[in-house]
Order: sequence, then C-alpha cells, then structure tokens
Amino acid sequence: MQEHLETALATLLDQPAAVTGASRTDAGVHALGQVACFTTARPIPLHGVRRGLNSLLPPAIAVVEAREVPADFHPRFSATGKHYRYLLLARPDRSPLLATRAWHRPIPLDVGAMREAAAAFPGERDFAALRAAGCTARTTTRNIEDVALSSPEPGVLSIDVRGNAFLRNMVRILVGTLVDVGEGRLRAAQVPEILASRDRTRAGQTAPPQGLYLMSVRYAPDV
Amino acid sequence: MQEHLETALATLLDQPAAVTGASRTDAGVHALGQVACFTTARPIPLHGVRRGLNSLLPPAIAVVEAREVPADFHPRFSATGKHYRYLLLARPDRSPLLATRAWHRPIPLDVGAMREAAAAFPGERDFAALRAAGCTARTTTRNIEDVALSSPEPGVLSIDVRGNAFLRNMVRILVGTLVDVGEGRLRAAQVPEILASRDRTRAGQTAPPQGLYLMSVRYAPDV
Repeated sequence: MQEHLETALATLLDQPAAVTGASRTDAGVHALGQVACFTTARPIPLHGVRRGLNSLLPPAIAVVEAREVPADFHPRFSATGKHYRYLLLARPDRSPLLATRAWHRPIPLDVGAMREAAAAFPGERDFAALRAAGCTARTTTRNIEDVALSSPEPGVLSIDVRGNAFLRNMVRILVGTLVDVGEGRLRAAQVPEILASRDRTRAGQTAPPQGLYLMSVRYAPDV
Repeated sequence: MQEHLETALATLLDQPAAVTGASRTDAGVHALGQVACFTTARPIPLHGVRRGLNSLLPPAIAVVEAREVPADFHPRFSATGKHYRYLLLARPDRSPLLATRAWHRPIPLDVGAMREAAAAFPGERDFAALRAAGCTARTTTRNIEDVALSSPEPGVLSIDVRGNAFLRNMVRILVGTLVDVGEGRLRAAQVPEILASRDRTRAGQTAPPQGLYLMSVRYAPDV
C-alpha cells in the first residue's frame, strides 16, 4: 500500500513523497481504517488530495478522508488505540462472497465458552503469550480494553478487539485461542494461565489474515 | 459455473453428468441463489452431494442445499419467480471492499425521484423497452411484482426487484433507468411513457454487472 500511495502522491504533488503509516498489516488483512501521513510545501486543498489520490490509486486502495495535522504528528507513535475486527464464517458451508473476508469454521462453535474466554483478555498485562515469533517489540505489556463477540448476520461471528497497542499477530493469536476454546481444544478456564505463562506455544493457533480488519486508529482529541 | 459443476459432479458420481441451471447470469453477476439440477441413478445421500461437491468445487462456487425433485422438474421452466438485488455505492469515495460488488455513483442521487420512478414498473406489461439487443425471448410480457429501494448501511442503496421472469439485462436496464432518474438525466414521470414506447433506446443506461445479485428462484410449494 505504501508504495502505491507514494507513487500516487509523487504524481499529484509533482515531487518525491514519503508516506508513514499507522500500522503494517500482513498480506490479506483489510486495512479499512489505515492512517498515513506525508509532508509537503505545495499549496494543495485537502479535498484535492483525497480526490486526486483516488483518481490515481488502484481500486484496492481508497482515501476516505484527508486532514491537516500538527508537524509533530506521527501516525503510529501518536496513536492512543486501535480497533480490530475479526470475522468468522461459522456454518457448515463456505461462502464465495466471504472466501477472502472471513475465516471459515465449519464445526459448530461453543460461543458461550468463547465469551467466557474473551473476558480473560482485557486489562493491562504482559501479552508475550500472544506474540508472533518474529515480533521485535521491546516490551510486551499492552492494554486490551475490550473483546466483544456478536453476530451481525446468521452464520457470521464478529470479534471486536480494542486496545492501546498490539504485538505482532496478537489479534490473530487471540482469535485463534478463542476458536480453540470454541471447538474444545482449549478450555476457557485455561486462558488466564496461558497469559500468565508468557509462553506462545501454550496459546492457540494463529487465525489466518483474511478475517482481520483494522477498523480504526484512535488519536488524542487535539490531533 | 456449469462447467465447474459438471466436472465436480462427474468426479463425485464417477460418471458423466449434465447440469441444467435456472438462470444464465452474465459475467460479474453474483448468482447467490442459483438453482441447478442433475439426474443420476447412483444411490448417494443428499448431504453427501452437498459436502462432496463443496470439497471438489473452486472457492467461488458453494452448494448450500441439495434436494430431491420430481422427475419433471426443470430449474428454469418450473420457476414461478425470481428475486434480484442491485447494490449502489452512493457516496463520493469508492470502497475497495465493494469494488466488484456494487456500482459506484459518486454524485448524490435523488432517492425520492427514484422511488417515484420505481413505482411505475410493477404490473404485468410489455417490457420490450428494458430488453437487451441480443435478447431472443419470443414474448416480452413479464410481471414485475415489486421494486423496492432501501439503505442497508450508510452510503449503500439496495434495489430489490421481484417478478415472475425477466428479459435479458432487464434488471440492469431497470436499475440504469432509475439511476438516470436519480441523477437528473430522466424524470420519474417519463418512465410510464418509456415503458409504453417499447423502445430500448428511450430507457436508461445498462447498469454494470458487478452490482447485481440473483438472490433466489421461486418454485411452486409442491416442488
């Protein structure tokens, strides 16, 4: 995405442009609420940035808003929180429309047990157990604010995760752990011990990328 | 789709299989409620047909139900009605998630005028004005039961069309005519005259295929 944005911006501004993003999402993840930042001295109106970029970008990328920010704004370091959504297709048959947009689990899920397990995550704690092997974060303490399960339509289960910041693959491992509970490979009561162990091998599988949506990035009100 | 189904069925049944479909949808149209029929002497349970085909078909095709039907059943000729849905993305900015699933109209639509125009279609009448050039149907009289506009989410307009049968591209020309009304190229009051003229050149544009969904095919209760 970054490369496409920089190419489009360079055309629009008629000068080289560097873009900084809020979140490096894995391939297949849907970055609906991605935030990106660039600096320019060209006098160009904000609606011109949005419309101009949309006419230059490929169909898979759309700019839905353009805003001016203080010079010290950084899309990642200024962020105070993020909201991710994960969609499960929980029914026996797959759906062509959701093939690249949800994780298909054909076996019935114990949603009650998943809700019980979900309640174990919120709070400020060490989430090393939910950290991918390649994660380079220096600290593993994060604050998960909320993990909420709902069913927006029959056969679809939505898991909404809000927190201040996330380790690499943290949401996908959290979801994989919930699914392992829902399918009986783990018990809800084990989740607190798994988190306390700080041991990635004790948590559940990593849910695949196509079900994950970065919904929004939160900033302080004055940004 | 037919070819993929026949290949999968031939593997499943271990004999050549011919499939008859309810509707020949154009490329890009989403045939969610397509109905297809085949004949076999193999003793195979219905859930085995569904599961077996789903394991053999590409991700873009899913069998959601399998049923036995009377020997004289024909998916197209036994049908008593069809329900189509057309999705418009009615907002300035495009949506990557809806790029191949809706028709993007960036200019504000006059939905009130579109509703007024929609009311002119229902009834049994000659719909030659809504017939594509290549249509080979012998008669052009059809019964449109209902054309309903709604907004399932902000920025999305859904047009639900129900009728006994449809001419080639009829729903897409109907939707294109409504959009021409919504954008001021036609007036709602002109629609009855356009239909009465039986003249395709007087109706609106043909809406592109990617916004169209075949939702369901209706049969008599005893099928």
